[in-house]
Amino acid sequence: MISDNSLSETDLIKYFLSLSANDASLKVANGDDAAVFSAGDLQIVISTDSYIENIHFETSYCSYFSIGFKAIEASGSDIVAMGALPHFFLVALGLPENYSKVQVQELYSGINASLKRLNAVLIGGDTCLSGQELVLNITALGTLEAQKRPLLRSGAQPGDMIAVSGKLGSARAGFELLKKGISGFEGLKKKFLEPACRVDLVGSLTELASSCIDISDGVASEIRHVCRMSGVGAVIYEEKLPFYSELPRAAELAGISLNDCLLCGGEDYELLYTISPEKKAEIEGTVIGEITYQREIIIENSSGRRKLTEEGFDHFNRGTT
Amino acid sequence: MISDNSLSETDLIKYFLSLSANDASLKVANGDDAAVFSAGDLQIVISTDSYIENIHFETSYCSYFSIGFKAIEASGSDIVAMGALPHFFLVALGLPENYSKVQVQELYSGINASLKRLNAVLIGGDTCLSGQELVLNITALGTLEAQKRPLLRSGAQPGDMIAVSGKLGSARAGFELLKKGISGFEGLKKKFLEPACRVDLVGSLTELASSCIDISDGVASEIRHVCRMSGVGAVIYEEKLPFYSELPRAAELAGISLNDCLLCGGEDYELLYTISPEKKAEIEGTVIGEITYQREIIIENSSGRRKLTEEGFDHFNRGTT
Repeated sequence: MISDNSLSETDLIKYFLSLSANDASLKVANGDDAAVFSAGDLQIVISTDSYIENIHFETSYCSYFSIGFKAIEASGSDIVAMGALPHFFLVALGLPENYSKVQVQELYSGINASLKRLNAVLIGGDTCLSGQELVLNITALGTLEAQKRPLLRSGAQPGDMIAVSGKLGSARAGFELLKKGISGFEGLKKKFLEPACRVDLVGSLTELASSCIDISDGVASEIRHVCRMSGVGAVIYEEKLPFYSELPRAAELAGISLNDCLLCGGEDYELLYTISPEKKAEIEGTVIGEITYQREIIIENSSGRRKLTEEGFDHFNRGTT
Repeated sequence: MISDNSLSETDLIKYFLSLSANDASLKVANGDDAAVFSAGDLQIVISTDSYIENIHFETSYCSYFSIGFKAIEASGSDIVAMGALPHFFLVALGLPENYSKVQVQELYSGINASLKRLNAVLIGGDTCLSGQELVLNITALGTLEAQKRPLLRSGAQPGDMIAVSGKLGSARAGFELLKKGISGFEGLKKKFLEPACRVDLVGSLTELASSCIDISDGVASEIRHVCRMSGVGAVIYEEKLPFYSELPRAAELAGISLNDCLLCGGEDYELLYTISPEKKAEIEGTVIGEITYQREIIIENSSGRRKLTEEGFDHFNRGTT
């Protein structure tokens, strides 16, 4: 924990934002999934993320291949959530002193496998010694035509449906299973180790959705961001949250609550988006709720309603995920 | 050191490059100071670098302000060396558990002071817990009009003059003085702690120079890169290497050789460029040598000539700088 003041990630980002100058070409500043700036007749969508050993991953249950693969997919997901295809990547790698060539090659094999999947290009990087931990920093970029609208967190309108792509909670359960050494459930474990960001949805989302965010920290956290930035509230239908059929048994074996998996589990890199009801049929995704005027987030199930109080994952308030 | 195979930074970058796919919009791949890609009617110049505690800096003799300031200037320098102005920055910060709010604020004050000096904008970032060490990753971007030529390492022609901006060896001496606790020489120490990249030279260099590289690892290392990438050789006139008048005394007190400071000292973030003799008068810089057909690098002084054998700084072959 940060000493002398409890400085949360949110506080830091606020402080960070307060330093940002205005710039005519800056269209979306830090605070959404990625920043967007105008560059001639295009818009550049860009995001940077660090992945640090023992904070974001542990080599005891993640292969070097999966560490590299996931870092690219997770970073690409921020560009996807803005409605752009992640096409260019830069990788800065800090290697502890005792690293082997084989480990580095496996790491890059994972990076390369994800780049191929995304039809993306590695355009730059940096390698250096780190201290105790392996450190990856990934910068991902995409482009949007000048007249295209980036898909922001702030576009949700009362009456919009809230939908998610894919299934929820898989990576969270996979992580718990791996950490506890529980065998089986390879599909869930793969969702944690080698998630695939939803580049396949970029085209239709850009056309149809009113807002979008990638689910890196869990639905509870992401809907909070969307509501805050759109100035709206939401009702989430808890029983509509989609999951794979093996999830309840996996959660039970791992000693975690199914609801916690579904509402607070991130790292699948699925997308949460809002869309007006008449457009919903045109795009993949499960409707899990509705945007409301009332600025509060309600979780509703057949037993009743409760206000959302659970915080999403915050890197300063939780340890390793 | 890397175990089971001595894997140098150069090896890693080669391996890294071998993974890069071809892409029509990629104009300069990793391997120069920065990558360049086409984006509509502009070119985007981009570079990423990590700065890791106890590898790139130590908090015993660097203030948090200077760590932040220098990280931005050093990253901006890569964009400058391509002939573009560094205008956008992303900062990913990994903070050890025991960090204080005051330290983080000082770090950002340094980042902000450099951004103001460069007239640049912070457009994105990431903050997370790190392990034992403070980790900064900086991504710097600039733009060039589509018809403008990026300033590459590969453009040097036999007969070109080799010139450097500013003075050499100051940051190296400053570093040794700080590490050894020797008082005085504040100017040299400041060149190490708060170097200023040469944004002032971007316009004239883009017009006039045939090649350019920033001096992050020392003249000996940089001229080697320029010669290898241009397919040429060089003669360096050792007695022409420019330095501040206090440097010899500082080097003596710090127990380091003046020649080592001048040929191998980097981190001043001055520029080394090549230029045809008739254009040299139009731009600031001290002529320190000449590009030759013969593909070897000769160091010449009044006592004779020797081939350059000293390696420039390689992050895998040397410890902390």
